[in-house]
Amino acid sequence: MHRTKVKVVADALDANNTIARANREDFDRHGVAVVNLMSAPGAGKTRLLERALASLDGVRAGVLEGDVAGSFDADRLSLLHIPVVQLNTGAGFGGECHLDANMVRSAIPSLPLADLDLLVIENVGNLVCPAEFRVGEDARVMVSSVTEGEDKPLKYPLMFRACELVIVNKIDLLEHLDFDMEKFDYHLDGVHPGVPRMLVSARTGEGIDEVRDWLVALTTRAGAPA
Amino acid sequence: MHRTKVKVVADALDANNTIARANREDFDRHGVAVVNLMSAPGAGKTRLLERALASLDGVRAGVLEGDVAGSFDADRLSLLHIPVVQLNTGAGFGGECHLDANMVRSAIPSLPLADLDLLVIENVGNLVCPAEFRVGEDARVMVSSVTEGEDKPLKYPLMFRACELVIVNKIDLLEHLDFDMEKFDYHLDGVHPGVPRMLVSARTGEGIDEVRDWLVALTTRAGAPA
Repeated sequence: MHRTKVKVVADALDANNTIARANREDFDRHGVAVVNLMSAPGAGKTRLLERALASLDGVRAGVLEGDVAGSFDADRLSLLHIPVVQLNTGAGFGGECHLDANMVRSAIPSLPLADLDLLVIENVGNLVCPAEFRVGEDARVMVSSVTEGEDKPLKYPLMFRACELVIVNKIDLLEHLDFDMEKFDYHLDGVHPGVPRMLVSARTGEGIDEVRDWLVALTTRAGAPA
Repeated sequence: MHRTKVKVVADALDANNTIARANREDFDRHGVAVVNLMSAPGAGKTRLLERALASLDGVRAGVLEGDVAGSFDADRLSLLHIPVVQLNTGAGFGGECHLDANMVRSAIPSLPLADLDLLVIENVGNLVCPAEFRVGEDARVMVSSVTEGEDKPLKYPLMFRACELVIVNKIDLLEHLDFDMEKFDYHLDGVHPGVPRMLVSARTGEGIDEVRDWLVALTTRAGAPA
């Protein structure tokens, strides 16, 4: 029975990866760099995007917004006057807790890829399943808020491993918390040694320049349009 | 295809409910009141338990601790000198993102039910899937931290509906946040009108008495031991 279960899972991930490659080809054809942005609920992904995407001089950005229900974040980001497409996962099994390659694929016809240099896919707030599904992105970025505590890399190791950048958010609150940054770094290095990390406050804007520069650099690494 | 998928889901939840009823019978036989405690990662479930369970005079409490990986929280709660059993979900599909009735069932032989009045099942930190699986509990309690923002009921409606009590945690940080409690209440009443809510700070202890009294009252409602 155990062997059968493993096989089914492998097939599901194989199918996901096949579709992720098709997404990747579409993104490459248009020279769009794609970020899969992940975090726990309320870690500040949307506010981070409000800050970072407002100042991306010359880079044409768009957002694919994943939520179980509602379009609250998409409405907020629309104020930036950039293309924002909402993807709701609520039609699945009581609400899917992550985006997968096929959900992203279903949104591609709604995305103006020819007019974009950067697409940020804001995943469903969840530290478990989003890490398991590639969607055709160039880079996976996770946001960890200091209010969540320094033990999170230990408790959600796959998420902290399955990313190319960790953004530590809400550092404006550090003086009011017991959060120990050295312990966080120690736990993070335990599961993902040396992964790049940036300390930011999406609320005050501290550290946002570094995030913006990283996003701009990613677009210059992505292929030129065909 | 769509019909087939719905059928599979219904069967999976039916199986879960069948096992949840078996758990319920075991809990009833021993007169144990059971709470399913749910929240996003880092909302403060463990610190809340450290506070609330330390002062439960006369009520014999135990904890079943659900995590993808590690035993960090179980180690913390063991300091209360109460029975704590760790359940790791990491053996599943890259780590199961929730507890279900069968996982809880597998832990029952390790739990000293005959010596307990109250069992708190600390679910995996996640605002989506834990809400879909009953585990045989008397009550579902969710913790929502004010650092997560006031929009969470809109974005994770099933979770805020599938509980009998909402504990709003980290209120000691309110003065440092933009969190609007009226908006939170408005959104919460939109998805779950009139659900009881308590404002607490597990860090300072504010409001913990009310949580403790609620837990004690739950044990007196649970059946007497056979």
